[in-house]
Amino acid sequence: MKVLIVGASGLIGSAAASALSLRHDIIEASRSGATPIDVSDLDSIDRVFDHIGVVDAIISCTGAVPYKPLAAFTAEDFNKGFNNKAMGQINLVLRGIPYLSTGGSFTLTSGITEREPIREGTVASLVNGALESFVMAAAAELPRGLRINAVSPTVLEEASQHHPWFPGFGRVPAATVGRAYVKSVEGNQTGKIYALN
Amino acid sequence: MKVLIVGASGLIGSAAASALSLRHDIIEASRSGATPIDVSDLDSIDRVFDHIGVVDAIISCTGAVPYKPLAAFTAEDFNKGFNNKAMGQINLVLRGIPYLSTGGSFTLTSGITEREPIREGTVASLVNGALESFVMAAAAELPRGLRINAVSPTVLEEASQHHPWFPGFGRVPAATVGRAYVKSVEGNQTGKIYALN
Repeated sequence: MKVLIVGASGLIGSAAASALSLRHDIIEASRSGATPIDVSDLDSIDRVFDHIGVVDAIISCTGAVPYKPLAAFTAEDFNKGFNNKAMGQINLVLRGIPYLSTGGSFTLTSGITEREPIREGTVASLVNGALESFVMAAAAELPRGLRINAVSPTVLEEASQHHPWFPGFGRVPAATVGRAYVKSVEGNQTGKIYALN
Repeated sequence: MKVLIVGASGLIGSAAASALSLRHDIIEASRSGATPIDVSDLDSIDRVFDHIGVVDAIISCTGAVPYKPLAAFTAEDFNKGFNNKAMGQINLVLRGIPYLSTGGSFTLTSGITEREPIREGTVASLVNGALESFVMAAAAELPRGLRINAVSPTVLEEASQHHPWFPGFGRVPAATVGRAYVKSVEGNQTGKIYALN
């Protein structure tokens, strides 16, 4: 299969690329790189699809959100996090539908804060909750047998700088997270959240 | 208790007001009415709180989202729905914290599309998913024993114009929905989603 991975330079994106490159042709896109993309910019997304044409799977491992105590968050912080991590990935779905081959799949990336809070993580929770309900709903309306799933991991074993924010949480190796993208791309499920706790 | 109900003129807001007015002083706020409020406008929210002062419970029954087939939705539609139903209610929380008495409660309103899709309801699902994860996360960080919950109903028995969009779904009487707000306001739970299926 021809697989587009957006956010391929990050820890999760690299893990997805490693797991999938064994059997598939990978196109790695990221903010800066051989295939540059800015998912907040619809024209940038369109340019990438115009260039690469039809693919069999689109994987998104992008998005950042602000972290602050609840009382310090402004409405702008919520909008910023929503636009970056939720709308960035949703833009990729909305513009990517015509470029996905019949039966092809989208795989987005949410996170454990959808279901478990962490300190200063209210915006992260909101954005991940938005993404997971979006995936459930979009799965029911995609045309041509297209599928959509999300990988929703706990903190990664390798992301030791984040461990203090996840006290007592399970940690998952990047390689295990990478395999969840394989499940989504090569499997038959849709509307599924691969929760790695 | 002194209870502010925002969106009090709607079917759900009226039901909350009816259920709570037996034992509490209700301040009904809505787009047009004795206490006008526009939850998309932080100044409008601040004016209402300046005017009414400290309350013991803040209930939000506001928000509308666009409905379209997935392929017809634009990024603007997603932003519009998010700003109206999610950020409107979140603005009320962010600005309302200083005006809520110790141990007081917020009760927001989401909906069944968080967990079950309906035709043309992708934006509704996204917004309700965002709200429910927000409530879970905010509950863990509110100061002074403040609480926050959400009521997440299926289609209302009385909203017959919406019934064709919810084929085979359960229907809940407005009075039952109203009682969920009583549970949130008078009870001791926080971070709870009152799912009425």
